[in-house]
Amino acid sequence: MKIGIIGAGSIGGNLGRGWAKAGHEIRFGVRKPEAAAELVAECGERAQATDVQTAAAFAEVVVVSTPYNALPEVVSSLGDLEGKVIVDATNPVAWDKGPTHGSSTSAAEEIAAAAPGARVVKAFNTFGAEHLLDPKFGDRTLDVYIAGDDADAKASVAALVEALGLVPVDAGPLRNARLVEHLAVLWIHLATQGGLGRDIGFSLLRK
Amino acid sequence: MKIGIIGAGSIGGNLGRGWAKAGHEIRFGVRKPEAAAELVAECGERAQATDVQTAAAFAEVVVVSTPYNALPEVVSSLGDLEGKVIVDATNPVAWDKGPTHGSSTSAAEEIAAAAPGARVVKAFNTFGAEHLLDPKFGDRTLDVYIAGDDADAKASVAALVEALGLVPVDAGPLRNARLVEHLAVLWIHLATQGGLGRDIGFSLLRK
Repeated sequence: MKIGIIGAGSIGGNLGRGWAKAGHEIRFGVRKPEAAAELVAECGERAQATDVQTAAAFAEVVVVSTPYNALPEVVSSLGDLEGKVIVDATNPVAWDKGPTHGSSTSAAEEIAAAAPGARVVKAFNTFGAEHLLDPKFGDRTLDVYIAGDDADAKASVAALVEALGLVPVDAGPLRNARLVEHLAVLWIHLATQGGLGRDIGFSLLRK
Repeated sequence: MKIGIIGAGSIGGNLGRGWAKAGHEIRFGVRKPEAAAELVAECGERAQATDVQTAAAFAEVVVVSTPYNALPEVVSSLGDLEGKVIVDATNPVAWDKGPTHGSSTSAAEEIAAAAPGARVVKAFNTFGAEHLLDPKFGDRTLDVYIAGDDADAKASVAALVEALGLVPVDAGPLRNARLVEHLAVLWIHLATQGGLGRDIGFSLLRK
């Protein structure tokens, strides 16, 4: 799959590493492509760093993994997103102080409003970036909660979750991104002020 | 421990069954004590059904497991709650439509505001009542996320969680009841519209 990753921080970087290894084509969309040279080298020949708009134009799936505060500027700089799958991995939280939005909307819904025609999916926001490349906890594996209104887009993202060895859980329509964003705040609390550290993550048990 | 359970529905009933079996003293506080006769008989000699205020006055720990809509009336009818541990097991949700509160407050915080001097703890709201008596999922056990501002109160509730064979997870201060209430909505979605059924529940993995 052709994947554009906007933002080459810890989440975006590890998504790129994992997906490149799994055989996907990666374009990191960043302000300074030369600053991502080391990451690109790690990912091998299937990865390049480009400007943001080139990465988005290249991709079938565009992952937004910038800081949440950068979102409005980032989305408006991506060019035509019609029909593309947009994966929102951001966390609109005031650190350990709860979601910035309340429950009346979510970062994912904001992106959908700003990019009509794009198929927005919330995912990859409920644990630390390191777990993307090491998702096993003993005999169990970390979940990725996926919210979105387009079934095909969610299926594509679920396949990308599985390509990393994680477990996709369909969390419902895009409005449920509100729930998934709250779950991220619970993870952040437990990992930081809660004192459990970052080696934790949620798993949905099934009988 | 002396436990008052306000509301003898599926959650309150199973909490009482489990705790009576574990040796705790139970008073079900209900409108019509005679209607709870079968439940009381199941719980054995350590349980009685009384009116709401008698159950609250008896108890060190008062569990509120009524429908959320009944909360204002229930809390005002409990009498003096000074120093008592109040466990809020309610779910302020419009069924599968998200929390009724947004993120600006929570049912647990409403109870705390209505009962100054009480030590309110959110717990037991993130899965179906049947799992209270059967919390094993293969080799893993369901979590109970506990939010509250009083450490001793949370420790008491954690002990009551363990008495049922469940795993207590300290989810932080009472304001994090907002997060725990959102987690309940995610469970409800997954179990109902999400199609997974009720035999699911969250577990925090640790490395």
